Amino acid sequence: MTALAALTNHQIRLKARPNGLPTRDGWDFTTEPVAEPADGGVLVKTLAISLDPAMRGWMNEGKSYIAPVAIGEVMRAGGIGEVIASKNPGFKVGDVVSCTPGVQEYCLIAADQIKRNGLFKIDTRLGTPNQWLNVLGMPGMTGYFGLMDVGQPKAGETVVVSGAAGAVGQTVGQLAKIKGCRVVGIAGGAAKCEWVVKELGFDACIDYKAGNVKADLKDACPKGVDIYFDNVGGEILDTVLTRLARGARIIICGAISQYNNTTPVKGPANYLSLLVNRARMEGIVVFDYTERFPLAVAELAGYLKDGRMKSKEDVVVGMATFPETLLKLFNGENFGKLVLQFA
Amino acid sequence: MTALAALTNHQIRLKARPNGLPTRDGWDFTTEPVAEPADGGVLVKTLAISLDPAMRGWMNEGKSYIAPVAIGEVMRAGGIGEVIASKNPGFKVGDVVSCTPGVQEYCLIAADQIKRNGLFKIDTRLGTPNQWLNVLGMPGMTGYFGLMDVGQPKAGETVVVSGAAGAVGQTVGQLAKIKGCRVVGIAGGAAKCEWVVKELGFDACIDYKAGNVKADLKDACPKGVDIYFDNVGGEILDTVLTRLARGARIIICGAISQYNNTTPVKGPANYLSLLVNRARMEGIVVFDYTERFPLAVAELAGYLKDGRMKSKEDVVVGMATFPETLLKLFNGENFGKLVLQFA
Repeated sequence: MTALAALTNHQIRLKARPNGLPTRDGWDFTTEPVAEPADGGVLVKTLAISLDPAMRGWMNEGKSYIAPVAIGEVMRAGGIGEVIASKNPGFKVGDVVSCTPGVQEYCLIAADQIKRNGLFKIDTRLGTPNQWLNVLGMPGMTGYFGLMDVGQPKAGETVVVSGAAGAVGQTVGQLAKIKGCRVVGIAGGAAKCEWVVKELGFDACIDYKAGNVKADLKDACPKGVDIYFDNVGGEILDTVLTRLARGARIIICGAISQYNNTTPVKGPANYLSLLVNRARMEGIVVFDYTERFPLAVAELAGYLKDGRMKSKEDVVVGMATFPETLLKLFNGENFGKLVLQFA
Repeated sequence: MTALAALTNHQIRLKARPNGLPTRDGWDFTTEPVAEPADGGVLVKTLAISLDPAMRGWMNEGKSYIAPVAIGEVMRAGGIGEVIASKNPGFKVGDVVSCTPGVQEYCLIAADQIKRNGLFKIDTRLGTPNQWLNVLGMPGMTGYFGLMDVGQPKAGETVVVSGAAGAVGQTVGQLAKIKGCRVVGIAGGAAKCEWVVKELGFDACIDYKAGNVKADLKDACPKGVDIYFDNVGGEILDTVLTRLARGARIIICGAISQYNNTTPVKGPANYLSLLVNRARMEGIVVFDYTERFPLAVAELAGYLKDGRMKSKEDVVVGMATFPETLLKLFNGENFGKLVLQFA
C-alpha cells in the first residue's frame, strides 16, 4: 500500500459563511497527502458526490437537524466511492460504497466513524452508482418516506410536488403515480415542465416562472390538493395553501427558495387554510428512517428494474467546478438529480 | 299560545362587513313579532349567548369552514335558551336547550332546521347553562378534541396554550394537567396570568404583553414545547415555533391576533422549525367531532363534578351591549369564557 503516499488529495473547504448565494471566493482549495487507514478504517476514493439544496443549510451557523460545517472544514457531501485501502474486514479494495466523503478526492474513514459517516457497500446490481445518489440514495429515501409515511397517499388523490425535476421531486411524483394518484409537478420553465411530463410521466407540470401558479393549480387540481410535497417554500407554498382539499397533508421537506435569502424567511401567510381544511403540515428529516432504508431501496429498485420508475441524473464532471455547479441547484438549471462526478 | 303574539323579538343584524374591529355602526337593531312554530318546530327564548373569536371570521366574506353571515341577517351565535312553544314531540315547554339562536331574544326553529341549528336538550344536572356554553359547549369540545385527537398528549409532556384565560384555553390547560402534562399558558397582562395560574391551576403563565415571550418560554419550558395549542397566531405562534421539542404537535385552532387585521395575515416565518424538529401543525374544526360530543361532555362533566376542572365564565348582562361586549374578546379583557346573558 505504499503507492498511497504518492497520491494527493484535492479538497474544497468552507472558507467563509455565505451571505446569499455561495460564491467561489467562499471556498478554499487545499491539498493534503493521502494517509493509510488505521486498524478498522477504510480509505475511499470519491467517484461522485451528490449536490443537494440542504448543503446550503449546512453552511449556515446555528442549530439545525445536523451540525453546521465549520469554517475551514472540508465541505460535507454525500457520495459514492471505491474502497482503495481497507483495514476493516467488512470492506475490501474494489468495493463500491455509499458514504459521506465530502468535497474531496479521498476520504479516510476511521473505525469509529463508519456509522456516522454512513458508509455502506452498495449493491450495483440494484442500480448504478449515480442511481445510488438519486432514487436509491438520500433524495429517494427522503421522497419515499416523506410521501409514504407523512403524506400517506391514497389512490385517486391529487399529489402536488414542487422542485419536480429535482432528485426528491422525481421520486415523489413517480412513486405517487405508481400508488394510483394524480400527480402535478411544479418546476421552473416551459422546457423543464415538458420534461417532467414527458420523461417522468407526471400528469401535469406547472411552470412557476410563468406567474400563474394559482390559476394553473386550479386547472390542474380541480378537486383540490390532497398532498403537497414542498421542496421550495416561499410564495409557492403560500399559493398551494389556497388550494388544499379537506384533510390535506403538506410535507415540509425543504425551502430552496429561501435558503439564499438575505432577508428573513417569508412565512406562509395562508396557513389558516390548515384550519379551514383540517389540514396538516409536517416536517421530515430522512435520517429518522435509516433502519427502513433497505426495504425502501428494494421497492424502488424493483420499479427501476420493471421500468415503472426512471432515475434521472444531471451529471457534471470535474470536482473543480464544484462552486459553480452547486449554483445550478439554486438557479434551477438542473434537469434531474444534480451529480458532480469526479472523473 | 296566543300570548306569543304580544311578544317583540329584539334582534341584532349585520349591517356592513367590518374593516378591522367591528364597531357599533356596523350593526342594525331590529324588532320582529314573535311567531308560533309550525308542525315539528320549536320556539326558543334566548337565555344567554356565547361570544367567540370565531364570530369575527363569520363576518367576513369568502369561503371558510362555514358560510359567512349575510348582510342584513341576524348575527349568528351559539347559545342556551328555554323552549317556550313546541310542536315537536322531542321538546316541551320549559326544556333548557343548546342551539344557535343568533343575537336575538327569540328563535323560531323549523322542523327541517333542528339538526342544522344544533338544537338539543341539555342536562342541567351535568352543568349550569353557562357551563354548557363553556367547558361543556363548543369551546370545551374544541379544546377537548383539539388536545386529545390532534395533540395526543402523553404524561410528562409540556403543553403550551395561548388565549389561556379564554374558553378553549382554560379547557385545554386544565385537561392537559389532568392528563399529566406540564402546562404553560400565554395570556395578556400580569393579573390575567396570575389568575390563570391560581384559578385554573396552570404550572406557569407567560404575559405576552411583557414582551419577553421567547425568553419566558425558554424558562417555562426547559425541555421544549411538545404541544402548542394556538388560539392567537401572529408573533406568538412564530415565537413558539422557535422552542419546539422534537416531534412537537401544533394545533391550529384560531388566530385572534389576526382577525381584525386590515393588513394581510402574517405567516409564521419560523415554520421551517417543523422540518428541523419533525413537527406537525394541524387545523381543527370542532364540527367534525359532533358524534363524539356526548362522550367528551360526560368526561368533562365528571371533572367539573369532582373538582378537578373549573368552568370559568365572564358574564355580561344585557343583549344591547353586544357590540361593545364582543370587543372585550379582541381587547383581551375577558377573564374566562365570555358570555352575554340576556336578562
